[in-house]
Amino acid sequence: MTVRQLSLPELAEACRASGVGRVGLWREPVREYGVEAAAELVRDAGLTVTTLCRGGFFTALDPGERAAALADNRRAIDEAAALGTDTLVLVSGGLPPGDKDLRAARERIADALTELAPYAEDHGVRLAIEPLHPMYAADRCVVSTLAQALDLAERFPAHQVGVTVDTYHVWWDDQAPAQIARAGATGRIHAFQLADWTTPLPEGVLNGRGQLGDGSIDLREWKTHVDSAGYTGPIEVELFNERLWARDGREVLAETAQRFAEHVIRRGRPANDP
Amino acid sequence: MTVRQLSLPELAEACRASGVGRVGLWREPVREYGVEAAAELVRDAGLTVTTLCRGGFFTALDPGERAAALADNRRAIDEAAALGTDTLVLVSGGLPPGDKDLRAARERIADALTELAPYAEDHGVRLAIEPLHPMYAADRCVVSTLAQALDLAERFPAHQVGVTVDTYHVWWDDQAPAQIARAGATGRIHAFQLADWTTPLPEGVLNGRGQLGDGSIDLREWKTHVDSAGYTGPIEVELFNERLWARDGREVLAETAQRFAEHVIRRGRPANDP
Repeated sequence: MTVRQLSLPELAEACRASGVGRVGLWREPVREYGVEAAAELVRDAGLTVTTLCRGGFFTALDPGERAAALADNRRAIDEAAALGTDTLVLVSGGLPPGDKDLRAARERIADALTELAPYAEDHGVRLAIEPLHPMYAADRCVVSTLAQALDLAERFPAHQVGVTVDTYHVWWDDQAPAQIARAGATGRIHAFQLADWTTPLPEGVLNGRGQLGDGSIDLREWKTHVDSAGYTGPIEVELFNERLWARDGREVLAETAQRFAEHVIRRGRPANDP
Repeated sequence: MTVRQLSLPELAEACRASGVGRVGLWREPVREYGVEAAAELVRDAGLTVTTLCRGGFFTALDPGERAAALADNRRAIDEAAALGTDTLVLVSGGLPPGDKDLRAARERIADALTELAPYAEDHGVRLAIEPLHPMYAADRCVVSTLAQALDLAERFPAHQVGVTVDTYHVWWDDQAPAQIARAGATGRIHAFQLADWTTPLPEGVLNGRGQLGDGSIDLREWKTHVDSAGYTGPIEVELFNERLWARDGREVLAETAQRFAEHVIRRGRPANDP
């Protein structure tokens, strides 16, 4: 998604050129290219698919909508398995129109997971509930904190349901480090994603995620939190950003790899260090 | 602020016409009109000032900026006392430019309160820390939850420092009802404000607060939470909304009073009730 301006073949080639061996994919471009063709493309390019984004949207009250959502999630699980990734990221859904009951909406997510988790296990796929920033609670995801995500995930075995830790969504939360430890202790950190927080937020607050190092998040500290929780899986950079999308995708990919090295991996000297 | 298109004399007259006897004021129009003149105006109109908004912005690292903020907060306390309100609402401030340390910023708020709380008490004014929605954590207020606000407030006597509960900022937080009970148990709910949550959020996410009943928040339930916590003080409606500001202020005030009766006070029949 960070370089969605690239087609899948262009992405595979750019990853090769940048020395990136693992990639998280979104369903839309995969389905457009064809799931089997996409699986073959990434396999031939020597790429590993880290996660597929995204299933979810479980909060409908209408029985027909609910059944459609469950069917679509089974397809998402099939697609994840076809791509060879073991993780499907879930964005759980917001409040139905006119509805104001966050608690009931969260409970409907648990109901949906009860139906989907065994299906996912049968296909070798883990579900990773992603808490989204509270500013999305009404219209995208009623799961706003890692604590809420874990309260849901822990109703299921860890190899079926865990969580996604995304710095953009949890950075403000002083409870998040303890919840990362809680998730790590039961092997439930199924994905770890990075984006920086920059302001002002754009209208709709969707496509303003900051390039690593441009914002307010101490990315290295969050990596330390997941490291300390025993997480050894891939680290994804997921930026929804109109300005990055308007640039050359190869350039953005190379820049992102460089920023990752600078702001996540390398220990920089403090600015006031002589 | 809900009807900031009205001058203070127009506001006083509109309150009289709408039967509104209590009003929360912001510093800017009060200072523009003159603090003593404003105090006389509301007194003559028979209005009670519920709160003054706002002090705060305590997070500067620069010593000069910090001293200026403390001086400005002493002036705000003086103004609150002059207007006859016992409550100054605090918006604590965001991260300084380039800074990423939320914990240290929160600690600087405690340092500032240590200097200001006795001064406030001497002037008969309580300080009310307002947690702002997490989407403001970087640029406006590093205090994002009622739990964080109470952790700060409880370092001081309740008659010096408490919290502001604003539905717009806390509605997403499943921990907020328990924190309201915690605040009520020690007499620390110093203000209660209402706004509804509507989407999409506007650019900058500042002026999109919804008119009561237009959004996703179960306002009546939040009133029940503060009622159950023993709160008997005023209820303020604080809407930052470009569309409301573009309309006739008297009309917006009357509409807001009607919405308050409908969505906060009156027990409506469920939509599917025959």
